[in-house]
Order: sequence, then C-alpha cells, then structure tokens
Amino acid sequence: MNTDYDLIVIGSGPGGYVAAVRASQLGMKVAVVENELLGGICLNWGCIPTKALLKSAQVLQYAKHAADYGISCNAQFDFEKIISRSRNISATMSKGVEFLLKKNSVDVIKGFASFCTAGTIEVESNNEKRGFAAKRIIIATGARSRSLENAAIDGKRIIGYRQALTLAKQPKSMLIIGSGAIGSELAYFYNAIGTQVTLVEFFPAIVPNEDDDVSAQLSRSFRRNGIKIMTDSSVENVDTNGDVCSISIKTKKGIETVEAETVLSAAGIMPNIENMNLEKIGLKIDKGRIKTDEFYQTNIEGVYAIGDVVATPALAHVASAEAVACVEKIAGKDINPVNYKNIPSCIYTSPEVASAGLTEKRAVAEGYKTATGKFPFTASGKATATGERDGFVKLIFDAATDRLLGVHCIGPNVTEIIAGLVTAMNLGVKGHDIIKSIHPHPTISEAIMEAAAAAYGEAVNI
Amino acid sequence: MNTDYDLIVIGSGPGGYVAAVRASQLGMKVAVVENELLGGICLNWGCIPTKALLKSAQVLQYAKHAADYGISCNAQFDFEKIISRSRNISATMSKGVEFLLKKNSVDVIKGFASFCTAGTIEVESNNEKRGFAAKRIIIATGARSRSLENAAIDGKRIIGYRQALTLAKQPKSMLIIGSGAIGSELAYFYNAIGTQVTLVEFFPAIVPNEDDDVSAQLSRSFRRNGIKIMTDSSVENVDTNGDVCSISIKTKKGIETVEAETVLSAAGIMPNIENMNLEKIGLKIDKGRIKTDEFYQTNIEGVYAIGDVVATPALAHVASAEAVACVEKIAGKDINPVNYKNIPSCIYTSPEVASAGLTEKRAVAEGYKTATGKFPFTASGKATATGERDGFVKLIFDAATDRLLGVHCIGPNVTEIIAGLVTAMNLGVKGHDIIKSIHPHPTISEAIMEAAAAAYGEAVNI
Repeated sequence: MNTDYDLIVIGSGPGGYVAAVRASQLGMKVAVVENELLGGICLNWGCIPTKALLKSAQVLQYAKHAADYGISCNAQFDFEKIISRSRNISATMSKGVEFLLKKNSVDVIKGFASFCTAGTIEVESNNEKRGFAAKRIIIATGARSRSLENAAIDGKRIIGYRQALTLAKQPKSMLIIGSGAIGSELAYFYNAIGTQVTLVEFFPAIVPNEDDDVSAQLSRSFRRNGIKIMTDSSVENVDTNGDVCSISIKTKKGIETVEAETVLSAAGIMPNIENMNLEKIGLKIDKGRIKTDEFYQTNIEGVYAIGDVVATPALAHVASAEAVACVEKIAGKDINPVNYKNIPSCIYTSPEVASAGLTEKRAVAEGYKTATGKFPFTASGKATATGERDGFVKLIFDAATDRLLGVHCIGPNVTEIIAGLVTAMNLGVKGHDIIKSIHPHPTISEAIMEAAAAAYGEAVNI
Repeated sequence: MNTDYDLIVIGSGPGGYVAAVRASQLGMKVAVVENELLGGICLNWGCIPTKALLKSAQVLQYAKHAADYGISCNAQFDFEKIISRSRNISATMSKGVEFLLKKNSVDVIKGFASFCTAGTIEVESNNEKRGFAAKRIIIATGARSRSLENAAIDGKRIIGYRQALTLAKQPKSMLIIGSGAIGSELAYFYNAIGTQVTLVEFFPAIVPNEDDDVSAQLSRSFRRNGIKIMTDSSVENVDTNGDVCSISIKTKKGIETVEAETVLSAAGIMPNIENMNLEKIGLKIDKGRIKTDEFYQTNIEGVYAIGDVVATPALAHVASAEAVACVEKIAGKDINPVNYKNIPSCIYTSPEVASAGLTEKRAVAEGYKTATGKFPFTASGKATATGERDGFVKLIFDAATDRLLGVHCIGPNVTEIIAGLVTAMNLGVKGHDIIKSIHPHPTISEAIMEAAAAAYGEAVNI
C-alpha cells in the first residue's frame, strides 16, 4: 500500500470521508488516514449518537405523557441500554463509512499522520511508522472539546462530550458549561431522563448564536421542564474533592456555588492541528485555524484544509460541502466557492431549533431595514393535533428588496422544514414567492408561509 | 344583520373562512354562512382530527416498541379517550376559526344557504328563512364522502370518514374501500390500534396518485404491519344481514369474500352543490363541478366558486390558496393565478408520504427525457439514529433543462421536508441548486440533496 496517491485525506469525518469518496468518483487514487474510528466525531461522538440518545428521550417523554394521547403506560428506562443503543448506531454508521470507502476503492490507512514534506506524510500506528506520498493532501482532522482553565477536563468528574455519551451510570446531577448545540442537547437529554441539570452560559442568553426570540423561547421550555439556567455566568472553580463537585460560578449578582455529581464542559472546540509537523512544512495558521483560499488550498501548494480546522462554521454539513468543493476544484471542475450565506444550523432539543441566514439583530446591525413576520405554533393545526405547540417561525425580510434574509424556527420537527427554504434562499426567494407557494396542510412547515404573510400584513390564521 | 354585504361566503372550511378573513383584511364587509361547524370538513372531519388520531397511534407505536429505545413499558390504550381527544382538538380549532372571524369582523350566519338571485341568498335555520344580499358571493361548500352503489353508506355497518372518526367502539375488523389519503390514513390508524384491516383498491396499486415506487414501498410497510391489501379489486356487494358484514370483492382472480365488522367507504368525494338553487340562477356545472375562470368567477358575474366544488385538486391547502387569489382579485390586486404545477400532497401514515410535481410515469408520458435520483433512508444517519429507516426520496429532473419536475418522498417526517422544495420548484430550481445548497446534518431532509446528487452521479453516501 506504500504507493503514491493522487490524494491523501487526513481524517475520515464528514469532511474527510466525503472528500475521499468524491475524489475517487472523480478519478483520483485516494487514501484516507484515520487514527480512531471511521466517520470521525460526527458519526462516533457527535451528530449521530446524540440524535440516538435524544430519540430515546423523545420516546420516553411520549411514554410519560401517553395519557394525553389516550394511552396508559408505566415507562421505565434502562440508562445502560439507552447508551448502548446509541453506541451500536454509531458503530453501524461507522461500518457504513467503511463500506463507502471500500466501494469507492479508497485505501484506509490506520494511524496518526504527520507531515514530512508538503507531499509526504508519516503514519504512526502501534509504534510503527510508514511513509506515504501524494500529489495532494487534505487536512480534515476536525476538533475536540475545549478544556477550560477553570474547569479542566479530567475525564472523571469534569467530562467532555465523549464521556457524556458513554457514562456507565446516570449522574444524579450535572452542571453543563456552555449552551450551544452540544450543551443544550445534552442538557435536554439528561434532564429528560431525570438528571438534575444546571446549564451555565457566559453570554446573556442560552443558544447565544440564535435569534433572541428563539433563545427566550428555548429558555422558557427548558425552565418549565426543570433545567436550571444561569446566564451571564462563568465557572470560576470546580472543587472535585468532595462526594460531589462544588462549582463556584461568577454571576452578575456575585459568586454562587452549585453542587453537581458531574461537570460537562461544552464550551466550544479546539481544532486538531498539533503534532502533525504543520510548522515544519511552514503551514500558515491564524488564531488557531489553518488559513486557506476560497477552495481550501493552504499557503502551501498541494496542501488543503477543510472542516473544523479552518475558520468556517464548525458543522458537519459545512465540512462535507467544503470537501466536495475542494476536490471538485482539484479535479478541475468549474465550480463556485461554497456559499456561506445561508448555512442552516439545527439543535435537536425539544422543542427543536433550526435557523439560517441573519438574526434580526444582525440584519439591523448590517444596516438592513427589515420586515419581520412571526407565526406561533399555538395557532398551527398540526401542532395542536400533535399536542406540541411550543415555539414559532420567524422570518426576516429585507424591506427594500423583499428578499428573505433569515429564518428562525423553534418547535416540533423544525429541523426538517428548513432545508428546502435554504435552497430557495440561495435562489433569492422573496416574501411573496413564499406566500404564494402552496404549503401542505396540515404541517409544521405551513408556519413558514404564515410567517411570511405576517411580515406583509397578509396573515390569515393569526 | 340583514344588511348588504360586499361579500358573502357560503361555507367556512379552509376555502371559506380564509376567503372571508382575507376579504375583510382587504376592506370588504363580509359574512360567512355555515350550516354545520365552523372550519368545515378539514378542521372537524378531515385533516385535523385524523392527525390527532394518527398522533395517538404514533405514541402507541413508540410505547409498543419502546424496548428498541432502551425503555420498557406496558402500553394500554383507551379507544374512547383517543376519539374524544381528537374531537376536542377539532373543537379547539373550530373555536379558533370563530375567533379569527370575529377578530376580522366577519359576520357568521348559521344555516343552509340557497340562491334567490345571483346577488341574494336565503338562509334557512330551524325552519326560519332569512334573506341576505351581497355584491359578490363565493360558493365554498366543499364535499362529502361519495357513496358507492354497491356499498351505499348506511351510517351503521357501512360508514364514511365522519363516522370512522367518531365510532363509539373499536371494530374488531374493518374493510376500507379506497386507498387514497383518507383510506390509507384510516387503514394505518385502525391497524395500529389492533383492528384487522383489509384495504381494497380499484387501481393496480394503493395510493394510486403517487409515484409507483412510493405505492410499492407503502404497500410493503402496510403488509408487514398486517394490513391486508387487495388491489385491482372492487366491491361487488356488501351483505349487512349477518353478525359481521360479508363483502363480495371482484378481483383479477374472481370473486373473493371478506368478512368485516365495519365497512368504510373512502372512494372519493362528491361536491356539495345540491339544493342551493344553482340551476335557478343558471350556474354552469361540468361533470359535477362548478365551472370558473382562473380567478374563480363562475359564468355568472359576482358569483364565485372555490375549493372542492371546482375541478381542482380537492385539498385544504388548494382551497385556501384559491380563496386568497379569489378575494385578492376581487379587491383589485394585481396577482397571478394560482400555480397548480407543484401542489404538495401529503399522507400521514407511517411511513409518511409527500409529493409534488410529476411522477416519473407522468413525466415520461409528457415527453420529458428524465434524470432520476433516489436516496434510501437506510443510508440516512438521522433515520438510523431514530430507528425509522423505511422509505426514500426520489427526484425527477428534466434532463434537457436540469429543472426539478417532481419530488416523491416516503419515510419519517417527510411531510415536513417538502414545502420549502415546492417554493424552490416554483422558482425553477435545478439539480445543482439543490446539490450545492447546504442541507443540515443529520436530518431526513438531507435525502433531498443526496437524491439530487444521485441523479447526477455525484451521490457520496450511497
């Protein structure tokens, strides 16, 4: 296998394996290097296993509220079984990536890669080192949990998302630092199965990247379900010496102390760019991220970087889009750079959160005169029929051009209603294009049409 | 209240109430006439109460399969409670329409309307008749179950969808005639709660308006769940004299006899156009539907017709779109006619079905050279994580222009992924517009992007 490749991809996550498969389709001889499980964080420690846990939580919630639907049942859950189901699903998906790579004749090289020169790498595995050469190399090594100085991950009392997905025993209480997608999803999951959860956020609102109205709604839902939320707060110290951790939290009112069996650090991620001899080959790094041009070539010819190691949104679907663009460009296809304008972002709590484009605040800050429309799910027939009426759809239009600038959804199944609208946004969709498109009744997606109508004073159902 | 109106709307379903509210917003003095419950069939006997029943069925299915998710529970259901929940939800929604009409200053006239002249009607209620005049009148009286000659609805042993939503007792067995949306949804519901269901379809496949692949997939799912399906079959006779009904069915192999406690006739609908003196005012009717121009004016000036009484698809969302177009045109707005090209259609069984545009067969029949792409949910991370992997997304492109002609989905939550794509279709979306739009991971909606990529030989995940 020590042959020369057209392309070596370091990392097999949603950036790496997609780059490898697409490159092979385009006629390149490709290898992928992976030091851990095929599929990377997304399949093994991120998107997929969390969705599996959250599905168990959803089924449990339905079982607990079955009486609302005319059904009686006495639900019990088995934490170990929920965890092992999630691990099995990750294993299935990882096997799927193995199959895809094999089907596309991509060589898999197990081990840790570091650069010798711009076109050669050394892969270390079991203390054995092997050299490989390639015309081009893509760095797609992803990221890991950021460890905070005041709450350094020890893997026991203070954990990262990996351990949170594989705990042997359900903690009675958990303090979660950071309320982004990972922190919020795990807060929802652990609270749903009965762990006492405290969610600590440095910014004034949870899910701080979302529109303010969405943050406020999720906050209400979380609080009503018993999650303790502390915003404008940061962890000063974690004392892990007692039976439970004692966490000192700096709030606007002063220091508060919270006790929790487990502390989960979900305060951002760190790109995996260490120990790869990137300095040695002179690779340019800026604020911890690898610098590239718009088609992901670094300052060194033939070396590319995609996904969480570059300064674009750290999302699986962004990494995959970058992977395809990177290798299609290498293959000489006449393509446009990735459009970063309307990237969807989803949080799979209950209610779910989905958004794309500008928040209202951001649109105003960018100087737009906006027309905003909102439709609450309390007015939705589908939400009423299914008994899940929390949330709304909010659309933000440019009043000058009628173009849709941003979509912000919180509610049942909203992670599924956004993709088609993103496609329409990329085509420049305007208010009346939405209002005059027939939306199926009764669906949650109708709320998009109603919110658009509301922005133009034409809403019928509110 | 015997004043003159700018507009009287006969019927308060998703055509009628929407027309009334929108007309009032546009400055008209409006009344709506309703002989039954506000909200019409959709809210009271169609879309909404069925979705409520189907949600109970879904929760029951989750409870029954809870062990798959690490949860144990012994689920029991109460048929009466499931039915009464559904009725309560309809009542809530009907109250909602009452509120909307009141908020928009629309007068509600209770009773049965018939025409005196083109601009005057008589409304009969409790043997009392009152006259009303209006500059314009919209007929939005909807439709009812079609009663077959060989299986005439008697409301006891042979029922229509209304009775199917309000049965006092769960039947042990049910034979359903017709496998359109209504027949299939009720087949799914009754089978899910343990009724032995036989589904009889005249055409060679169930859900015969859907793409053949969708019909085949739903058929497999239904059969696996124990529904008996008889296609190419028609009911010859129902003998209701015994303890159970004995139904003679003409099949390709000859006459078969099936026994069932209840027979549900779901073989299409009949417009409600009788006893309204439509002949008296000279209204043109063609094949049982009222004829109109593209803005819903009939052959008589000032008299309009929308929804199930006209020859357009009998869907709530179509009626609402027609309502808005009709009154906006009356109000002098410069609008386009309703675009009937990409009307979404949804069936809320499990798996769900959603489609818009041309089926593959239809596209070929219309002379298109097609490029077709399909993505199965067995290859979807989200479907794998949630344990619901039946189905696929199939897209049909015009090979000459790359435009998307049709979308056909069957699978979990697919009724929610279609609306945004319909908006994009109305903007002329092409294959690579979809492939290059970033779809959020992990969602069911990603299958749209993957199916588009498959049509162009660029699919990474299959």
